[in-house]
Amino acid sequence: MKVYGDTLSGNCYKVKLVLSLLGIEHEWQHVDILKGEAKTPTFLAINPNGKVPTVLLDDGRVLSESNAIIGYFADGTDLIPQDRFLKAKAYQWLFFEQYSHEPFIAVARFIQKYQGMPAERLDEYHSLQPGGHKALTIMEQALRESDYLVGETLTIADIALYGYTHVAHEGGFDLSQYPAIQAWCQRICEHDGYVEMI
Amino acid sequence: MKVYGDTLSGNCYKVKLVLSLLGIEHEWQHVDILKGEAKTPTFLAINPNGKVPTVLLDDGRVLSESNAIIGYFADGTDLIPQDRFLKAKAYQWLFFEQYSHEPFIAVARFIQKYQGMPAERLDEYHSLQPGGHKALTIMEQALRESDYLVGETLTIADIALYGYTHVAHEGGFDLSQYPAIQAWCQRICEHDGYVEMI
Repeated sequence: MKVYGDTLSGNCYKVKLVLSLLGIEHEWQHVDILKGEAKTPTFLAINPNGKVPTVLLDDGRVLSESNAIIGYFADGTDLIPQDRFLKAKAYQWLFFEQYSHEPFIAVARFIQKYQGMPAERLDEYHSLQPGGHKALTIMEQALRESDYLVGETLTIADIALYGYTHVAHEGGFDLSQYPAIQAWCQRICEHDGYVEMI
Repeated sequence: MKVYGDTLSGNCYKVKLVLSLLGIEHEWQHVDILKGEAKTPTFLAINPNGKVPTVLLDDGRVLSESNAIIGYFADGTDLIPQDRFLKAKAYQWLFFEQYSHEPFIAVARFIQKYQGMPAERLDEYHSLQPGGHKALTIMEQALRESDYLVGETLTIADIALYGYTHVAHEGGFDLSQYPAIQAWCQRICEHDGYVEMI
């Protein structure tokens, strides 16, 4: 199995972290986003949406979308609740992450850390801050009530949100305002099989 | 069970369509997005993210995010594949919809149909067109190869994508360029239990 990914991407890191927590062997194929390697004809033949992470299974089948990929690997493990409602709650957080968290925090981080705050994106950068803080506030509220986002054990909801949250300061989001998020990040780090982003 | 939703929203329509296809009884509580009813303190106490659809189950538990909600209701039915890989493929399309489709097509439709193309959003409206067409092109490519997005039967992947695709012309996207999508829309309409958006 081959995982196409770029370590600078929190979306790719989610997959790396799930595979490590579950001890699943894989080959990591580096795709340099900044060099446009996800938009080459060769890569578009694998994933027409031109995005990483993308997984090529041994039988040739392809899976993309970070949160669908982690759902696939976690299926049948303790990382997804068996209870129907709690499983849906985990997916609720995954969709929240892609719509209400990543487009603010990951994009601000990309502009700050990887593009070096170019003048033409400064207005956009500042416009992303309220949305990012709104997402972090919703997480903080949930994590004041329980140790993990869905119940009291680690699930893919935590892994999906941890991806960009634990590096949110690289997008200008000061996590010291969010003590429950900070404690949760620490809790995730302590799991057997945890790997760092880079 | 109470479903909070607004019929102008394709995200809410997905839930309405799944409940109708599955014959699940529910109370529909209209939340007028344009009047800001999703942002009132009363509604934020139910869903702190201030978005519809949101479902309040009979036991008081709450579920939000349209695609998590349709996954919940479809769980255990023919609308979700049982095979682990195909199930992940269905979720791949759901995440694609929220990240690469809805933010272009639904937002352009909102500006055109509900805001009446205000001058201050015209640049944004035009900037959304390429992304919307990219999403439609990816769908067209998939639907040239099979009758439905995941295999040969209707799944939540089709319902999630149908929500805003079948009204994409209201956002300026001419579907006559996409014959496989048009045939697929027709195919979905013919299912028992199909209901129209409004």
